[in-house]
Amino acid sequence: MLKDLFGSQNLEAVVLLLFLARTVATSTSLAALVSLPTGHHGIDQLHLSELQGVVLGLLFGAVLATFLLFVVVFIVISLGVWPLPQAITSSTERYPLTPQAFCFSYGRRSAARPGCSVLDAASERYFSLIFPDYTYGSTGLETFSQLVYQDDFGSTKIEDFPRFQFRGILLDTSRHYLPVKTILKSLDAMAYNKFNVFHWHIVDDPSFPYQSHTFPDLSSKGAFHPMTHIYTQSDVRRVISYARLRGIRVLPEFDSPGHTKSWGKGQSDLLTPCYKGGIPSGTFGPVNPALPSTYQFMERLFKEVSAVFPDSYIHLGGDEVDLSCWRSNPYVRAFMQKMGFGVDFAKLEAFYMEKVVNITSFFNKTSIVWQDVFDYHERRSSLSVVEVWKEGCYLCEVRRVAKAGLRVILASPWYLDQPGPTHNWARYYTVWPLAFKGTEEQKSLVIGGEVCMWGEYVDATNLAPRLWPRASAAAERLWSNEKQTSSVDKAFPRLQDFRCILLRRGIQAEPLYVGHCKHEYHSV
Amino acid sequence: MLKDLFGSQNLEAVVLLLFLARTVATSTSLAALVSLPTGHHGIDQLHLSELQGVVLGLLFGAVLATFLLFVVVFIVISLGVWPLPQAITSSTERYPLTPQAFCFSYGRRSAARPGCSVLDAASERYFSLIFPDYTYGSTGLETFSQLVYQDDFGSTKIEDFPRFQFRGILLDTSRHYLPVKTILKSLDAMAYNKFNVFHWHIVDDPSFPYQSHTFPDLSSKGAFHPMTHIYTQSDVRRVISYARLRGIRVLPEFDSPGHTKSWGKGQSDLLTPCYKGGIPSGTFGPVNPALPSTYQFMERLFKEVSAVFPDSYIHLGGDEVDLSCWRSNPYVRAFMQKMGFGVDFAKLEAFYMEKVVNITSFFNKTSIVWQDVFDYHERRSSLSVVEVWKEGCYLCEVRRVAKAGLRVILASPWYLDQPGPTHNWARYYTVWPLAFKGTEEQKSLVIGGEVCMWGEYVDATNLAPRLWPRASAAAERLWSNEKQTSSVDKAFPRLQDFRCILLRRGIQAEPLYVGHCKHEYHSV
Repeated sequence: MLKDLFGSQNLEAVVLLLFLARTVATSTSLAALVSLPTGHHGIDQLHLSELQGVVLGLLFGAVLATFLLFVVVFIVISLGVWPLPQAITSSTERYPLTPQAFCFSYGRRSAARPGCSVLDAASERYFSLIFPDYTYGSTGLETFSQLVYQDDFGSTKIEDFPRFQFRGILLDTSRHYLPVKTILKSLDAMAYNKFNVFHWHIVDDPSFPYQSHTFPDLSSKGAFHPMTHIYTQSDVRRVISYARLRGIRVLPEFDSPGHTKSWGKGQSDLLTPCYKGGIPSGTFGPVNPALPSTYQFMERLFKEVSAVFPDSYIHLGGDEVDLSCWRSNPYVRAFMQKMGFGVDFAKLEAFYMEKVVNITSFFNKTSIVWQDVFDYHERRSSLSVVEVWKEGCYLCEVRRVAKAGLRVILASPWYLDQPGPTHNWARYYTVWPLAFKGTEEQKSLVIGGEVCMWGEYVDATNLAPRLWPRASAAAERLWSNEKQTSSVDKAFPRLQDFRCILLRRGIQAEPLYVGHCKHEYHSV
Repeated sequence: MLKDLFGSQNLEAVVLLLFLARTVATSTSLAALVSLPTGHHGIDQLHLSELQGVVLGLLFGAVLATFLLFVVVFIVISLGVWPLPQAITSSTERYPLTPQAFCFSYGRRSAARPGCSVLDAASERYFSLIFPDYTYGSTGLETFSQLVYQDDFGSTKIEDFPRFQFRGILLDTSRHYLPVKTILKSLDAMAYNKFNVFHWHIVDDPSFPYQSHTFPDLSSKGAFHPMTHIYTQSDVRRVISYARLRGIRVLPEFDSPGHTKSWGKGQSDLLTPCYKGGIPSGTFGPVNPALPSTYQFMERLFKEVSAVFPDSYIHLGGDEVDLSCWRSNPYVRAFMQKMGFGVDFAKLEAFYMEKVVNITSFFNKTSIVWQDVFDYHERRSSLSVVEVWKEGCYLCEVRRVAKAGLRVILASPWYLDQPGPTHNWARYYTVWPLAFKGTEEQKSLVIGGEVCMWGEYVDATNLAPRLWPRASAAAERLWSNEKQTSSVDKAFPRLQDFRCILLRRGIQAEPLYVGHCKHEYHSV
């Protein structure tokens, strides 16, 4: 399927040029967009003649490095492209498009060479997305090819690159277990939306589904079910590999010292025993920061996790630590005296987080923490990346973090687990991450944003419609030029079209308003 | 599978007695509940030994007549039964349960005789629901039978009947088209929840998907798509028959004179031309009440509809009529003068609705209208059933309608299309339909309630999780004894169990809170 068209006789075919400005690095971002005229809205009737063309683009870049990509694609249209490319210009030249003659090829000046597995797999995947009927036999194909020849095609030149390098979605597999298939399907949808980070909030208070080979009891005792509600090592590898082929990094989060109730089931002496009236009450609080065994455990756990998850980043959590249990425990208080913390529990938290940050940096990981850690930490220079999640003036917090010289990820405005006014997608679109007073250098520290889909009320039954197309609003904000995408009204029909494309590709994206798609969602 | 066990040798088998107090009428209500221990919540681990038994009941009744049903079922448990039966008592006697020995049978005093297609089909369906693994081959079966013999079983006697005879769900197939499969799946879920009326809001402003054989242009021009977004006669028959076997009546709504924009596309001169500055503006308003051709059209349409939909009820809508277009039209105004209505447009509305009510009653249908019609209608005695849908003091309106001697259906508190706080199911549970000052006779006029799932933001992608289990809260309110079901806290774990049962049966019911089900939902 992959041929270099230059010099070939196949001049009728699509010519696709890929100029890659930089080598595709280890962490590549593959973001591909293909818009087929699969959808149409409103109450007008559909005509076959509306099949006016195809836009396609194949976009590459090295993620954690500067990059520029420049893709020229002939064969085109004007239907919804989402997120909006940085630059798009059209001409009226016509090109016929047939699946037989169509292929992706490596550009002559591309640093990627034939045989690149990520590119090759992407080419195959997008070929089917562009020609969905091609495998349906000759009749479908004939109809399609006739339609293609009947219609007018313009040509379009696309220049594209993402505005922010970190475009994440958090899925929470602790409050509800998400089957691996559901995660893979979400990765498909993420790729269609050019999200490039899957933030896997894999464990938390309610359950510990990660099956650790170092500490198998964590899941055998801490998961909802030790066999059916866990992620085996093979499951995790499958998710990482599936994500990689779609240009998505998997960022694991092992949140501590709070949010760890489920950890305690399989690991005794890890959590702090809470006291009441001078004696242990039988309940447990956050991870016990006063015991050396805690850090030995964390070292062994993060050694494993660092090896299992190849991404150079790791999320260490650090949010919402309930101090009352620490405060009640005489051994914790004694430890604080010994350490010279007095009764300042923020210092104890900072001490704990710094230990964990050091452990993971020993394993060559850059750590990300929730904003809480930044807020109580005095020696902020030991932190690298801070994720802002609290409501209120979140840009104030973004500014504070950037002023401290740390990198920022913005999540506050994109808490999509809230059922809220679901159709109010514009709320997630009209977010301006850099609208704070700061220097250019400070603004460049805002590396991106993240949609958070917490699991209190979300599982496989409602994940997809709750996520899509609302997360698509965030996707465009994080990818596209803000000036070109500031109008909700202009974005609306394009987003409606894109939602139909998602449906056509099997993503259960809910409707934005009254209307229809040519291909509706069919549950099996 | 169906045998009369009395006198047979099969004494190990389940004995099921059905005492039907009345003959199963033409409109039968089959409401069957079977609770398998398929679900478990919280963060405790699951053990196979938790498979403690099976509750089952098979409930029958004549819907639009008084009835009493009394089902005795041995083989039991205490896990969630939803909606709660009117009376349930348990003993500790034990009965083994095996699929080979289990069967449903007709009681000797039952008015229903072997061969009753509704009962026979129900028996088959519920046999598979009770023994989901039976078809999976001998291994699954062996495991199951062992579990059954290992465990303790009590016995339970259930006496049950619904509190309200009308327990409806409205689906809107005009704002978004719902594939037939999606409708059938909803009917399954309705039956599990003992809903017995499918209120099919089949057409409205955005589209006219009903394919009329009398007026084929209505859908060929008024549907979103004339081929893919319509309900053929065969589709409609399939829905009605599928519903009937599940004890669900199909109540079609052809809402007029407002909400009819799509009708105008395939039927010229039906809608009122709006005027601006003394000339037609090119836009159209509600159905034109001033033309004799309007009533001729309605007569032919409702003649067809009355034949296609066998239920004795029909919903005629009558809500939200925008008067401005009628007001602008000189011919409408002239007609009003001629009729002696002056400038009282409420009289014109009432005139129109009365004509349509008369047309349908000529075809032996009892009509249901939205509360608007009751509000503006002076000769209320011509009305039969009024559906209360507006917010505010809806019980005030219920009281007014009942005081006027008309039957009432309550929908106001169950507008589940609103995305609102999805997890706030208690809001739909703590509804007290009879909590108004009135005589017993007036209260008896409240025949039931209805969950409305309007389609602005809902289609096949999000219908099920938006409907279930929130609609289950309304289901119990409409079925069960209010005194026994007034506590949200007591209902919560039972509803969580029931939601797991829905999942197990393939219904995409969303979670109520953190936790898990033994069998999670798996998208295919």
